Amino acid sequence: MGNGNPLVGIIMGSDSDLIVMKDAAQVLEEFGVPYEITIVSAHRTPERMFEYAKKAEERGIEVIIAGAGGAAHLPGMTASITTLPVIGVPVKASNLEGLDSLLSIVQMPKGIPVATVAINNAKNAGLLAVSILGIKYPQLREKLKMYRERMKQEVLTKADELENNGYTNYLKSHFQR
Amino acid sequence: MGNGNPLVGIIMGSDSDLIVMKDAAQVLEEFGVPYEITIVSAHRTPERMFEYAKKAEERGIEVIIAGAGGAAHLPGMTASITTLPVIGVPVKASNLEGLDSLLSIVQMPKGIPVATVAINNAKNAGLLAVSILGIKYPQLREKLKMYRERMKQEVLTKADELENNGYTNYLKSHFQR
Amino acid sequence: MGNGNPLVGIIMGSDSDLIVMKDAAQVLEEFGVPYEITIVSAHRTPERMFEYAKKAEERGIEVIIAGAGGAAHLPGMTASITTLPVIGVPVKASNLEGLDSLLSIVQMPKGIPVATVAINNAKNAGLLAVSILGIKYPQLREKLKMYRERMKQEVLTKADELENNGYTNYLKSHFQR
Amino acid sequence: MGNGNPLVGIIMGSDSDLIVMKDAAQVLEEFGVPYEITIVSAHRTPERMFEYAKKAEERGIEVIIAGAGGAAHLPGMTASITTLPVIGVPVKASNLEGLDSLLSIVQMPKGIPVATVAINNAKNAGLLAVSILGIKYPQLREKLKMYRERMKQEVLTKADELENNGYTNYLKSHFQR
Amino acid sequence: MGNGNPLVGIIMGSDSDLIVMKDAAQVLEEFGVPYEITIVSAHRTPERMFEYAKKAEERGIEVIIAGAGGAAHLPGMTASITTLPVIGVPVKASNLEGLDSLLSIVQMPKGIPVATVAINNAKNAGLLAVSILGIKYPQLREKLKMYRERMKQEVLTKADELENNGYTNYLKSHFQR
Amino acid sequence: MGNGNPLVGIIMGSDSDLIVMKDAAQVLEEFGVPYEITIVSAHRTPERMFEYAKKAEERGIEVIIAGAGGAAHLPGMTASITTLPVIGVPVKASNLEGLDSLLSIVQMPKGIPVATVAINNAKNAGLLAVSILGIKYPQLREKLKMYRERMKQEVLTKADELENNGYTNYLKSHFQR
Amino acid sequence: MGNGNPLVGIIMGSDSDLIVMKDAAQVLEEFGVPYEITIVSAHRTPERMFEYAKKAEERGIEVIIAGAGGAAHLPGMTASITTLPVIGVPVKASNLEGLDSLLSIVQMPKGIPVATVAINNAKNAGLLAVSILGIKYPQLREKLKMYRERMKQEVLTKADELENNGYTNYLKSHFQR
Amino acid sequence: MGNGNPLVGIIMGSDSDLIVMKDAAQVLEEFGVPYEITIVSAHRTPERMFEYAKKAEERGIEVIIAGAGGAAHLPGMTASITTLPVIGVPVKASNLEGLDSLLSIVQMPKGIPVATVAINNAKNAGLLAVSILGIKYPQLREKLKMYRERMKQEVLTKADELENNGYTNYLKSHFQR
Repeated sequence: MGNGNPLVGIIMGSDSDLIVMKDAAQVLEEFGVPYEITIVSAHRTPERMFEYAKKAEERGIEVIIAGAGGAAHLPGMTASITTLPVIGVPVKASNLEGLDSLLSIVQMPKGIPVATVAINNAKNAGLLAVSILGIKYPQLREKLKMYRERMKQEVLTKADELENNGYTNYLKSHFQR
Repeated sequence: MGNGNPLVGIIMGSDSDLIVMKDAAQVLEEFGVPYEITIVSAHRTPERMFEYAKKAEERGIEVIIAGAGGAAHLPGMTASITTLPVIGVPVKASNLEGLDSLLSIVQMPKGIPVATVAINNAKNAGLLAVSILGIKYPQLREKLKMYRERMKQEVLTKADELENNGYTNYLKSHFQR
Repeated sequence: MGNGNPLVGIIMGSDSDLIVMKDAAQVLEEFGVPYEITIVSAHRTPERMFEYAKKAEERGIEVIIAGAGGAAHLPGMTASITTLPVIGVPVKASNLEGLDSLLSIVQMPKGIPVATVAINNAKNAGLLAVSILGIKYPQLREKLKMYRERMKQEVLTKADELENNGYTNYLKSHFQR
Repeated sequence: MGNGNPLVGIIMGSDSDLIVMKDAAQVLEEFGVPYEITIVSAHRTPERMFEYAKKAEERGIEVIIAGAGGAAHLPGMTASITTLPVIGVPVKASNLEGLDSLLSIVQMPKGIPVATVAINNAKNAGLLAVSILGIKYPQLREKLKMYRERMKQEVLTKADELENNGYTNYLKSHFQR
Repeated sequence: MGNGNPLVGIIMGSDSDLIVMKDAAQVLEEFGVPYEITIVSAHRTPERMFEYAKKAEERGIEVIIAGAGGAAHLPGMTASITTLPVIGVPVKASNLEGLDSLLSIVQMPKGIPVATVAINNAKNAGLLAVSILGIKYPQLREKLKMYRERMKQEVLTKADELENNGYTNYLKSHFQR
Repeated sequence: MGNGNPLVGIIMGSDSDLIVMKDAAQVLEEFGVPYEITIVSAHRTPERMFEYAKKAEERGIEVIIAGAGGAAHLPGMTASITTLPVIGVPVKASNLEGLDSLLSIVQMPKGIPVATVAINNAKNAGLLAVSILGIKYPQLREKLKMYRERMKQEVLTKADELENNGYTNYLKSHFQR
Repeated sequence: MGNGNPLVGIIMGSDSDLIVMKDAAQVLEEFGVPYEITIVSAHRTPERMFEYAKKAEERGIEVIIAGAGGAAHLPGMTASITTLPVIGVPVKASNLEGLDSLLSIVQMPKGIPVATVAINNAKNAGLLAVSILGIKYPQLREKLKMYRERMKQEVLTKADELENNGYTNYLKSHFQR
Repeated sequence: MGNGNPLVGIIMGSDSDLIVMKDAAQVLEEFGVPYEITIVSAHRTPERMFEYAKKAEERGIEVIIAGAGGAAHLPGMTASITTLPVIGVPVKASNLEGLDSLLSIVQMPKGIPVATVAINNAKNAGLLAVSILGIKYPQLREKLKMYRERMKQEVLTKADELENNGYTNYLKSHFQR
């Protein structure tokens, strides 16, 4: 799978987005998917964005994850230059609760889709990339099933604790309340 | 590619969504991607939804496109049962301009992503499915590049006409104004 | 009334919702309504959710209170599986001020209602459960009337203090301003 | 069940709301639940509203359904005067897509809940009333299960037709497209 | 002017609104307008609200200022019971940025207006009351003109300082930046 | 009362607002309040606006009603120039459902209030003017009480018809459904 | 001024935007400003957009007007490639009342501004271009003053008619009501 | 360029806006554009606003930057009095996330445009002023190109560091995480 060459390219409009976007990288590491991560600003480095999107496929990238805030043009512009699937992560900037970013990414016109995930939810961008790659790499599909199973077990364990110890104790142990 | 078995499953919460969702089917036909299309209501037929999502992978489905309006739970619930990539289409119902549907689909919690496209934009759901399948089926990637090229040529043709004939004539010929 | 068997089931999508949802439990304790409280994630444990909703009635549950944030599918999906009344509590997650959760819960399609209360207002979910149970258990109706009377008296006491001591003193004693 | 005395009171702020609110009445008729329906304006007939809410319980009413548009105060004010469960229907007036009405009904303060349903969805208000009454009247619970079964069968029939005839034919027969 | 009897009644739905509503009282004190201030909850003390609104005119009240948060029904209900002008102050509660409160107050149906001011802007409610009373009491009109003149002078003084000292110094002296 | 001189000045930003603003004039006629009505554009005739606001008081105007759409500056600017009470009517223009107009009018800064009514609700602006003038002119207060009584009777008549004839007949007679 | 070479370039993302964007062209014609108008899709013809923005300055263009709907990236991307002032026109597409387009254009990150005008208000984009060019071409400033004077006269004429004939006649002559 | 006389006038509605608006001044200093900065309140000093806008052109001002919060009328009113280009900065006040301010500034009616930038983005207002002045003063266009080049280099440097050191180290050095 990629022979070490990155299969997923994670790009973001500004280094301040890294606090959010690192979650995508962590998911890919957890699944053993080779990836690269860098800054590509649609507005401050438009040529770099073009170059990145244009060359991604021939460099072996199979999925692009793009995060940006405010008038977030990076995911949509990247999607317009490459035919690879592009996953968009709306990053919540200081105003409007991330709604501007969400609408700028998801409301793409007919012809060029962006696979948009929830505001600030770069973890889900990583998981969606794994799910998409799972079409081609069956071992990822299997890993994803195990990941889901682990998530389920975590919920069950917490549910058990809550049911057995009561909510007062649960709040004390987990939330200091 | 699928040997005639559907690779994409298009589901929708109500038959009234078909007016929107047919666009996904038309794109898949245009690209020669085998697909199936049916009604699966998260709220009125929850068992059917479970069954559909649970069996999709073993039936050979590789991507699911799910459209729904209002409190649109179908895409997210389907995504929680299968590990296949699920593309969500927010369908605009009679109120709130489709914002309720968009938020109900895109704002998924950490762990279960839905690849959300624009409100009512089932065409883009179809194109995103093609792009995702293009990872495994190179001929789809090639067809997608040609599709993009055609879209570009259409714009250029229109631009030419507008530049040469002037906006007054253009409006008269194309929009009866 | 229930002979100790829970009459109300409080479920939530994540243990982090407990900070909000505990208010429903406290109300039920105050009214002496037997209840149970646990975690049931629509997205991470869909089978558990199905199981819970399917079995609730035969286990003697008469009202379900379900809280969730973001694309909150738990209340609506639970309501689609059981015919018991389901009260939905939109929990405010980190973005969009809880609007996503509110719309995901309240905007249910024709056929499957969720009795939605205000964002983060699990206390009112508890009170609504008591009011609903009051149809069958007259003692709860009576307790609710006394509860209302106490609320009224609290307001009157505060009003008295404000009228007699003036707003400056009131702000000092109660809000350290 | 009621001996012909109404168990459900349907009230609305204006006769123009009747176009929406009639759906609640039709559901109750379908389930054989005795009901009454009238106009009670919180703003133009506040005394009547007080009187109505105050006397409802002693007249044998067990659930109130209240619909209103704009700054919709009828459901919340009714709920503040009676301890019966009050179901609120946000009616979409001419502006703001019904958001004003929804927020005016659902965002009740701690102490007085309104069981809010979707904008204009009086049908669901009727069904929620049936579900609530089902706690006390088991025959309603049974009828509700049959109703759900019928809804499910309708979806399955439509799904069959769509799967067998194709979406083009389906659109032609059902939507003249 | 009132002979000491209050001309303005300031009411609020909860004592927590006092932090906002005190600004109205301070304005009235500054203008020497006799007023009263108390808590009147539409939802927890509906009879008290009726009583208050019904008796206000005969007690000599000429303007009512009513503040509330969330599904804010106090201003509108008060306005429906009295024919005195009612000024509504939307108080921002913990969610939705005060939008719910604003819409619940301002979107009154035809027949019963509420004179709505900005979210949390109880100061303006006080000033509006003064302006309204100024129709009858010319000395208030005169005081209001002087108040406006003082506001203007304050702006001019600040403008002078900013122009003369530069923005860097201004920020240092006034905002510690 | 005014000896025929207008007591209320109705102004609007554009003649297209007249379709909405005429309702204020009709109310004033109904109550026998002398008024004037004209167009004063904050943006296209700023000097005229200044002049109008500056001279209104000395011309005997006691209340100003100002309506505008979009970035509606007329009410707030008028209020900043005169100390008369200014009632603002947000007029719904072609986009954003009137929300832009509402916020532009209601969200005034501390110091200059505008008494804002509901979107497009010029009728309520007229009624609010009557209520305000009622402080000084007791006959208007009395007329307002009679107006309220008539509104109440209309509701009661409609309620009677609905209760006696049933909703099906009511819908047929009044709404052709 | 331009010697016939276009000084303003009007571009739009789709030919359907022409219905809105023609207003900018008409304003420029009225002021005698040479302009060009064409279609440049950020998403379907990204290279063309780059080329257009890159070459605009050397071709003598001094201001660019860019209109687009939905996730409107054309104005912001153009502004990122050229240092010419770019005026953005949010075009209202079929959903969300144009809010998505407005936020996608106006919420640009630090470094790259777009001079945004109101939704669908291409006329104002034309006038803003004239105002900007007026810095360099004094005759445009003069023409703009005359234009403003004409707008003012139109308002005064309408105000005269309304004042003299009354609103009933005005509505009849101008709005057939 | 201006011979020291200010070419840009920066005005704001309140001194509290200075925390945001200073960014415009800093940009102009960086580009060597003579400017002035002061407080001009549309609501508290309307005559001053008129005076300022009326005299700006003859004093040699070529661009005005106006910032305000809430019902932000300063930019639009200034634009209605002068024919100079006016850049509007929506300042986020304490409620509604700055949406009220944005809509009050951008949604100007046909005839009077305001060149609106993003919420709180006074830096972009400064850069837009430079871009506009660049039409007349070629050295500013050149400086702007160098500024863009520096922005680009900063991104490239950060991208290099991120690519070479990895995101874990980058987060540690830059964000203490």
